[in-house]
Amino acid sequence: MSRGGAVKGAELRGAVAVLMYTEGEYVKGVERGTVMKGVGDPLSPGWGSVMEGGERLGRNEKEVEERFPKIPSLPISVETAEGILRSLEGPQVPLEWRDALKNSNLRVGPGPTVLNFTYQGEEKNAKIHDVFAVIRGSEEPDRYVLLGNHRDAWTFGAVDPNSGTAALLDVARRYAFLMRLGWRPRRTIIFCSWDAEEFGMVGSTEWVEENIMNLGSRAVAYLNVDCAVQGPGLFPSMTPQLDDLLTDITKKIEDPDAADKTIFDQWTARNKGINIQRLSGVDSDFAPFLQHVGVPSVDIYYGTDFPVYHTAFDSYDWMLNHGDPLFHRHAAVAGLWGLLALRLADDPILPFNYHSYAMQLQEYTSVLSNKLEGRVSFTPISTSIKNLFAVAQEVEEEAKNLRAEGVSSDLEVLKKRMLNDRLMLAERGFLDVEGQLGNQWFKHLVYGPSNHYDSKVDFFPSIANAISQSTQTKRENQATIQHEIWRVARAIQRVANALKGDLS
Amino acid sequence: MSRGGAVKGAELRGAVAVLMYTEGEYVKGVERGTVMKGVGDPLSPGWGSVMEGGERLGRNEKEVEERFPKIPSLPISVETAEGILRSLEGPQVPLEWRDALKNSNLRVGPGPTVLNFTYQGEEKNAKIHDVFAVIRGSEEPDRYVLLGNHRDAWTFGAVDPNSGTAALLDVARRYAFLMRLGWRPRRTIIFCSWDAEEFGMVGSTEWVEENIMNLGSRAVAYLNVDCAVQGPGLFPSMTPQLDDLLTDITKKIEDPDAADKTIFDQWTARNKGINIQRLSGVDSDFAPFLQHVGVPSVDIYYGTDFPVYHTAFDSYDWMLNHGDPLFHRHAAVAGLWGLLALRLADDPILPFNYHSYAMQLQEYTSVLSNKLEGRVSFTPISTSIKNLFAVAQEVEEEAKNLRAEGVSSDLEVLKKRMLNDRLMLAERGFLDVEGQLGNQWFKHLVYGPSNHYDSKVDFFPSIANAISQSTQTKRENQATIQHEIWRVARAIQRVANALKGDLS
Repeated sequence: MSRGGAVKGAELRGAVAVLMYTEGEYVKGVERGTVMKGVGDPLSPGWGSVMEGGERLGRNEKEVEERFPKIPSLPISVETAEGILRSLEGPQVPLEWRDALKNSNLRVGPGPTVLNFTYQGEEKNAKIHDVFAVIRGSEEPDRYVLLGNHRDAWTFGAVDPNSGTAALLDVARRYAFLMRLGWRPRRTIIFCSWDAEEFGMVGSTEWVEENIMNLGSRAVAYLNVDCAVQGPGLFPSMTPQLDDLLTDITKKIEDPDAADKTIFDQWTARNKGINIQRLSGVDSDFAPFLQHVGVPSVDIYYGTDFPVYHTAFDSYDWMLNHGDPLFHRHAAVAGLWGLLALRLADDPILPFNYHSYAMQLQEYTSVLSNKLEGRVSFTPISTSIKNLFAVAQEVEEEAKNLRAEGVSSDLEVLKKRMLNDRLMLAERGFLDVEGQLGNQWFKHLVYGPSNHYDSKVDFFPSIANAISQSTQTKRENQATIQHEIWRVARAIQRVANALKGDLS
Repeated sequence: MSRGGAVKGAELRGAVAVLMYTEGEYVKGVERGTVMKGVGDPLSPGWGSVMEGGERLGRNEKEVEERFPKIPSLPISVETAEGILRSLEGPQVPLEWRDALKNSNLRVGPGPTVLNFTYQGEEKNAKIHDVFAVIRGSEEPDRYVLLGNHRDAWTFGAVDPNSGTAALLDVARRYAFLMRLGWRPRRTIIFCSWDAEEFGMVGSTEWVEENIMNLGSRAVAYLNVDCAVQGPGLFPSMTPQLDDLLTDITKKIEDPDAADKTIFDQWTARNKGINIQRLSGVDSDFAPFLQHVGVPSVDIYYGTDFPVYHTAFDSYDWMLNHGDPLFHRHAAVAGLWGLLALRLADDPILPFNYHSYAMQLQEYTSVLSNKLEGRVSFTPISTSIKNLFAVAQEVEEEAKNLRAEGVSSDLEVLKKRMLNDRLMLAERGFLDVEGQLGNQWFKHLVYGPSNHYDSKVDFFPSIANAISQSTQTKRENQATIQHEIWRVARAIQRVANALKGDLS
């Protein structure tokens, strides 16, 4: 559940204010975070917010007010929270809380402790600044490989986001070195430094909405790094057509924590195989690129669940003592990130493998189909996946043949461009113009945030939403689920059609 | 008002059945026509209807039933209608009917005449057949120029659609001749023969929905001809970036009705200048291509408002005696149509002029702005149009320079492709993901059917719908209109951005 969701829940149950804390080892840490619902500037929902002359909703319009809880909330430290909890009397905390609490003998009140909560609201419009650096492609300047990281931080932000910003600057430094040797990328490379990520991905979302046409038809991939280094171990997330490329690259870089080993060696040893996560979360700037526009995306970090997240302890000191004492992990992320972008910007044929995507979709379908035990039919999705497998194989053959042809001619140049167009645009097929059931801004029917029907179903969000709708009768509910299954099946078929590039 | 709209109106006012006729010189003619609302298969709204394995709504679902009037209707001849009207007593027909009626001394009943209306309903699923012929492009097979005409007819259909089908076959014959001489088009040419156009553009709509991804990213233009020859005189309609191309081609073909004159001479003499209509109607198969997917479109015919429309008098005999006794007009349409497609398929740089589009948009804005007399601001649209003018001029320069460069190299080939991509995709910017206010399937915010607020405002349908909404207070109404103006302004800006091909 999101912070905003927790506060909204308290509001609906009659609370007048909320104090929030997260259990953790840094008992003095206060974890900040936005409570706004959704992504992007609430005053320009669905379109780019521009400095001058753009449409803006009024602050008091219903659509804007619905994005915020109506009661105030304040993050507090574990120490403060425990002090308050210990002072409460009344019934014991519910059984399901006791696992999470260190002291299960606590009570929920009310009283006798009384808290004074003073809220001094300040509403103002703030100007934000996205910063870009562009290396124009020498042959296909109209194809974009984007590297993005945010720049705003809740506190010192040594991890979040400065470890990512350091890596971004290091990639730029490395590319500058190559450029002095005469290198220019085939396609355009764009470095993006986003503002206001912590307040609902505002910087990236508004820019994506503003540039939706050209990103939709020209962006090859969006490579995000946010908290680059949180500790040891590679944790990559991406859309599946990029799995092979990442795996390949991990074999080319020395592991930051083990001499004479590659990142691949340590990563696969640690996970007993290749372990890549997917991108259904809305927790960094890849969300608008992938979930709104269908751009193949990546999110990479070292380490996970760092204890000083969003607290004042997220400092250079913590990084030096815990996160990355020798800064080797920073260098490893820069290496991975830089090579990913380099390959995507320079490979004559885009290194996308849609067989991996089909495999992943098949796995999802099997999980969901077992869960629903025959109440609905997954045949439409299975049929589309079968078609995608077949097309992916044809395309792999085609790419192999084109790579083998050495001589360059007008026709060869166009043939490569045409194949790359199909590889680039295929992901857009997952977008549905009507968007997710109950969450229309999110257009991607495979990856996106669902209404948390089941934390294990972090895919097909619109089907998940249909399952979690409990307001309907069983029969209507099943019809809704079946319709969502059809929508996903058609989306996968669109991907197959785009990849094949044929009309029916 | 559409036939279906008339029947629906009668139903809402309590009628149990409707007899329909259209005043005209063929008093024995019975004008048929669909009364279904909207376009496409009602059982697959928004997605392609496929023969096997696709999702289909049930006949009794609300969404399906809403597409049809609940009362039966029957077309009758003028002769029959006048007989019935003359037999009625009661009050005189309203003043506003009298202009349309030959005999203004008629009465509206009820009675004393009693009509027996027997309705034998037959509901069945029918199989339809779209037929395609493809000439694969030699250099850019993934770019499509489509020529389309429907094949189903209400009666003999000598005009509607067989005059168009004859022209389509003649274009194919001419291309076959060129192919025997060794010609292959640079881009792919597709001949489309649609089924079930008369029942709500079902054949074309379902195919477009099924192929939305590849048409959206690959279709250069859709060239429609329906009732090719209805009489004398050229009546062309198209999206404005094609105006120059058509004008150019009319200068190359002899006029079918005046020796030693070109079509251009006669066409401009007749209209005292260049007279090109636009494509907001939903009266032939261009509608799904332009209004749903944003493909630049054309619709051409000779003659207009032919009296035997949809009656059994639309026969070879009528064509021979009235429509085109020497079949020269058929040949002229084939010439225009064939040359349009040839230029679009073969020109190294696409012959699109967006300056004409900007001019047209400026004219629309001035008409609407005068009409609304300062109640809302059109500045957002004017600003976008100004930007489009500037970009259109830059692109014209760029195209001129590229055309001048004779030597072919890898880079030149890609440069042309990149410019053509921008020219092709720019029209898609007019699409809005949320579609028209009150008519979401129609995504184009410049051309599409509005709710008939004013027959002179046959553009910006979503603004027109906002104006015609009279259910709101004046203040809310103006806010709605202003929001629609913003949406159109952003759409035009998207076109400018796509044409320029730059990120902001």
